[in-house]
Amino acid sequence: MTISIGIDLGGSNLRAAAFGGDSATPLAVHREAVGDDRAPEAIVERMARTIERLAGGSADPVTVGVGVAALLRDRRGTVANSPHLRWRDVPFGELLGRRLGARYRLGVYNDVNAITWGEAVAGAARGYRDVLAVYVGTGIGGGLIAGGQLIEGASHCAGEIGHTKVRWDDDAAPCMCGGRGCVEAYVGGRYLIARIRRELANKRRKTTVIERAGGSIDAVTPGHVDDAALDGDAWALALWTELAALLAVALGNALAILNSQRLILGGGVLERTPALRTMAEIDLMLVAPAARLARDGVSIIE
Amino acid sequence: MTISIGIDLGGSNLRAAAFGGDSATPLAVHREAVGDDRAPEAIVERMARTIERLAGGSADPVTVGVGVAALLRDRRGTVANSPHLRWRDVPFGELLGRRLGARYRLGVYNDVNAITWGEAVAGAARGYRDVLAVYVGTGIGGGLIAGGQLIEGASHCAGEIGHTKVRWDDDAAPCMCGGRGCVEAYVGGRYLIARIRRELANKRRKTTVIERAGGSIDAVTPGHVDDAALDGDAWALALWTELAALLAVALGNALAILNSQRLILGGGVLERTPALRTMAEIDLMLVAPAARLARDGVSIIE
Repeated sequence: MTISIGIDLGGSNLRAAAFGGDSATPLAVHREAVGDDRAPEAIVERMARTIERLAGGSADPVTVGVGVAALLRDRRGTVANSPHLRWRDVPFGELLGRRLGARYRLGVYNDVNAITWGEAVAGAARGYRDVLAVYVGTGIGGGLIAGGQLIEGASHCAGEIGHTKVRWDDDAAPCMCGGRGCVEAYVGGRYLIARIRRELANKRRKTTVIERAGGSIDAVTPGHVDDAALDGDAWALALWTELAALLAVALGNALAILNSQRLILGGGVLERTPALRTMAEIDLMLVAPAARLARDGVSIIE
Repeated sequence: MTISIGIDLGGSNLRAAAFGGDSATPLAVHREAVGDDRAPEAIVERMARTIERLAGGSADPVTVGVGVAALLRDRRGTVANSPHLRWRDVPFGELLGRRLGARYRLGVYNDVNAITWGEAVAGAARGYRDVLAVYVGTGIGGGLIAGGQLIEGASHCAGEIGHTKVRWDDDAAPCMCGGRGCVEAYVGGRYLIARIRRELANKRRKTTVIERAGGSIDAVTPGHVDDAALDGDAWALALWTELAALLAVALGNALAILNSQRLILGGGVLERTPALRTMAEIDLMLVAPAARLARDGVSIIE
């Protein structure tokens, strides 16, 4: 039986799962914190041990797919840059492949691309040939499948929907990418939390949000704002109305370009903000004709 | 020698060129007005006669590629809708294929996709695997090649960059697609000319543009505005500054998503407005990081 191992190397956790044959039920799963020692050699060694343990003692060939929170330079898994791992120009795929040896067939991918491909092969987008996946977490990442092919782009950074602009007026929000008006600078978790706390601190607002967070502005999360919006809190609703429209414009623009059949939404922020997500889904239907472009309509799932 | 014939069926002209073997120099070219009789049978018959004449009397196989200004429903060349030809649900590919017979190998494509593919095979994007082509004429059309593949989308209408939104405020311009804030509603020729004439008619503006058009507002074209902008005309410069930025945002957003290596700009409006095009190119460099995403930078050509 062929064993397949999938690994997600993120900024916080290293997660792995092993599968036998074509089964979608994992034989084993593993999770550990990435921790402070992020030297490439240390990560390679820990990952290799995890892989060997999950692969077991048999001599069967093992297929390993690693998704890394990084910008890759080539198909061999060279990390050009990973702010999360604090890596630059690390030949990660080569190091891991050499350490593992010939029994293992290894592929290294950008993490969002790996997730998107996984959803198309065995998940929420199974059977679809034109898929757009957008993950709103600390930042906003996107993965594209078009005509059944993963679209990686000329320098392996296609899908940067987070840096599409949704405003270009003089007040457009600055983004850490050097631009302004990027949708990530509004809805990406890093910016969203900063804005929420800033608005709560700087102005006398009638809102239940601080109370929901136990009285501390520093403890407020997007989840608290979402709860408040669902209860009709005016400040929370106004903020969510603004941000849902911006997210919808970015999604609609991507769909107008790609004519995807299936839209997948996920990520830490959207998982914890069902009201924001629903509002964005409704707005997306208004951002015509983009949402009309997909043959079966746009299906949105977590 | 294999003969290849390319045909462009637009809203105004039917153009054709025949090529022998691998030569990029046409054996013969043909151009006629589409005219008023746009019944599918009439167009099929005229096109078939043109093809037969260009193919000559030999028995060699002939490959025919037809680009149609239409939304296609399938790979067999069924026209779902063509406002230009006033066609709906026309099995154009089937009709033409039946009329031509077995000697001819026929492919029917959306016109912008056909142009884009042609540029990648034998034109301005030769050798590039990730190409974005944007044509600004009456409307704005886009063609995508990613990973060496033409991207047509789930319902054959990928590349609708004209209907990506560049504004979403209360004053965003209405678009005939039913939405508002689409870049086409600002830079598409139909809207652009209407706005130019409206602004010139409704307000007392100090501008040389009307004079350049012989004193008649109805004779003013984007080309006159472009000439005026190059001469420092304040009204023309202000309009071009606004529109160049909007076009650049739309292009930058598409590049952020696609990570294309080569950007091709063309179309009737941009061909006649070198100042607007140059301003948009400069703005595109400012719409970071989109323009930084392509490996070799973005190459812009006519």
